[in-house]
Amino acid sequence: MAAFPAQRAFLDAASGPLHPLAAQTMTAAVDAGWADPRRLYREGRQAAALLNQARETIAADLGVRPSELSFHFGGGPAALTAALEGLAWPRRRAGSRLVASAVEHSNVLIAGRYAVAQSGDPLRFAEIGVDRAGRVDLDAFAAALTDPTTAVAALQHANGEVGTMQPVDAAYRACAERGIPLLVDGQASVGRVRAPASYAALVADAATVAGPPLGLLVVPERTAFRRPGPPREAEFGRADAPVWVPLALAAAEAWQQAAAVRDDDAGSARALTDRIRAAAAAIPDVEVAGDDGERLPHIVTCSALYVDGETLVGELDRRDIAVASGSACTASTLEPSHVLAAMGLLTHGNIRITVPWRATAPDRDSGVDRLITALPLVIGEVRARLGAGGL
Amino acid sequence: MAAFPAQRAFLDAASGPLHPLAAQTMTAAVDAGWADPRRLYREGRQAAALLNQARETIAADLGVRPSELSFHFGGGPAALTAALEGLAWPRRRAGSRLVASAVEHSNVLIAGRYAVAQSGDPLRFAEIGVDRAGRVDLDAFAAALTDPTTAVAALQHANGEVGTMQPVDAAYRACAERGIPLLVDGQASVGRVRAPASYAALVADAATVAGPPLGLLVVPERTAFRRPGPPREAEFGRADAPVWVPLALAAAEAWQQAAAVRDDDAGSARALTDRIRAAAAAIPDVEVAGDDGERLPHIVTCSALYVDGETLVGELDRRDIAVASGSACTASTLEPSHVLAAMGLLTHGNIRITVPWRATAPDRDSGVDRLITALPLVIGEVRARLGAGGL
Repeated sequence: MAAFPAQRAFLDAASGPLHPLAAQTMTAAVDAGWADPRRLYREGRQAAALLNQARETIAADLGVRPSELSFHFGGGPAALTAALEGLAWPRRRAGSRLVASAVEHSNVLIAGRYAVAQSGDPLRFAEIGVDRAGRVDLDAFAAALTDPTTAVAALQHANGEVGTMQPVDAAYRACAERGIPLLVDGQASVGRVRAPASYAALVADAATVAGPPLGLLVVPERTAFRRPGPPREAEFGRADAPVWVPLALAAAEAWQQAAAVRDDDAGSARALTDRIRAAAAAIPDVEVAGDDGERLPHIVTCSALYVDGETLVGELDRRDIAVASGSACTASTLEPSHVLAAMGLLTHGNIRITVPWRATAPDRDSGVDRLITALPLVIGEVRARLGAGGL
Repeated sequence: MAAFPAQRAFLDAASGPLHPLAAQTMTAAVDAGWADPRRLYREGRQAAALLNQARETIAADLGVRPSELSFHFGGGPAALTAALEGLAWPRRRAGSRLVASAVEHSNVLIAGRYAVAQSGDPLRFAEIGVDRAGRVDLDAFAAALTDPTTAVAALQHANGEVGTMQPVDAAYRACAERGIPLLVDGQASVGRVRAPASYAALVADAATVAGPPLGLLVVPERTAFRRPGPPREAEFGRADAPVWVPLALAAAEAWQQAAAVRDDDAGSARALTDRIRAAAAAIPDVEVAGDDGERLPHIVTCSALYVDGETLVGELDRRDIAVASGSACTASTLEPSHVLAAMGLLTHGNIRITVPWRATAPDRDSGVDRLITALPLVIGEVRARLGAGGL
């Protein structure tokens, strides 16, 4: 199977094909950058130099110092967990309360709910509701920060399922007033669109720019950060393990390629998602989720009454169109989306379409054309089969 | 820089060049196995099938079921930390005491010492001494297990710095008598030699077989295992993040290639380390560490009086021979080795030589020849420079 078989339309965000140049870099780096960068001999020094270069490339685009950027095996989710721990620990005298939106990544929600279950104290986690577009209730978010036991707050830059941008600047100001660090989760957005400017820590993932899954964590020098447990040596004390240099080099190559075309690619991706949104909304009993204006350029989720998402994914797959269903961030694709549930929408019968980078899918326009043609037919067929066609 | 420049003798274990077929597999897998194996469309199912195949390949060689083997980003050290946590947590009613040899991987020692420092209770960690060959004091190890608050014991299969094999079967029997799980660390050995048969959990690293750094953790079905914190979804609940399929495929390819030549490769590697040991021992005031008989076939450490390891590494590097110094498992190559200290040996002036797989270094014999010629000259020169030549 080739990476980009012409007949297949790959319209999913999760672990997509690598940018062709990132794949080339990976191969070259396995040859030239395999050594442990901590070693004193020539190969080690070369690996260290390559790793520094990779870090500088990504840090420059994020507008931060190289030492503020750490690489995390396990992708954005691993960086997110590390960030939550590292922001909360220096604040443990104040308390351990977490404030976060109800549509955060499952690693955030699971951590919060687990703390509540373990302690029996419901105040350990304030899970702030969202409106029907998936945007957090900013007043409720700010009000939750007034509890003096709040250790850390978390808000995504944009939602990875429905694309809605969150008011991170306003949330940051509310946090800063009370000296509470705000963790901003940019896994779905950063790289694809410009990084936000206001955060105590920022998480991203190289997979978002068609790189390999590699977590990125930005901790500005001004932020107090210390993970609990024995001191770590890797990645300025922030990661569990030192990165494998070839992964970092491939990530940096993808990042550089993405940065060069970002605004242009976002513009054309938005035109495509505009078309998908309009086409989906025209199908009877299909609801398009998320904000139509302030949203990511490349993500659409829609829900169809009377069908289930798994069947839709399978039927589209038979027509060589790959899309996702269920929750964007939990392991089982069959689990109902907590994001759609929090928005008060249908949690079954949803599919999530991600417009890929043009570099990994030069024929993405025709892929979207085919999706737009197929979607009403497939939904109609599935409904007819269930006897729900005339509803 | 090519992976194996003919003029360079690469004699270090850490993150060496990949087996050429593993590197090819990595490249092919970036093309064919990039999808998230949890996705329902064709590319996802294909990635899942490839991942299963990789797991089966390695599990078969280890003599375990595929579901008993989990993959861990961050290499052997990450798997080791996960294993310690997962074995200790189900035993928390008994207590949280750790029993381990003083020459374990730094992740084990740091965890134990940190627990002592945090609790103020020196009984939380029994760090069992070793003899001058680096072999654990088995009587002391067994005696330490009698403390009823012991949660878990850890012993390496063989030491990664000096190669000495540990009495894991006897230690396992002592643990089993008291219902204490024994974690066996096979990072330096497993793959290169046959896996041990007796353990409650076993850790290995694909880097040991010239694969990419990928931690392997075997937890037999009979072992009680649960990591603290919220339930994890990846890798049967044992890992922090799902593995990237191309890494697992490259690891399995390397493993398969290693298994096919293991006994033969070990035999010829042992002949080379025999020669290195003899040559090093013939240099005045140079001590060869570790057991001469029951040892790994591919590792030699020696210490030279009146010189420091960093200088030796640098001088050998100038002669195109790459070796390691300091501790095998901590981040800073300049940190004195805790293994040699525990053995009562010189902790400075040491170098560690690892004979690579023949597949990654077809000219390893001539590399060892060059090391054997260079070593007395380099040590003599460095000593002369320091005015220690006549000592």
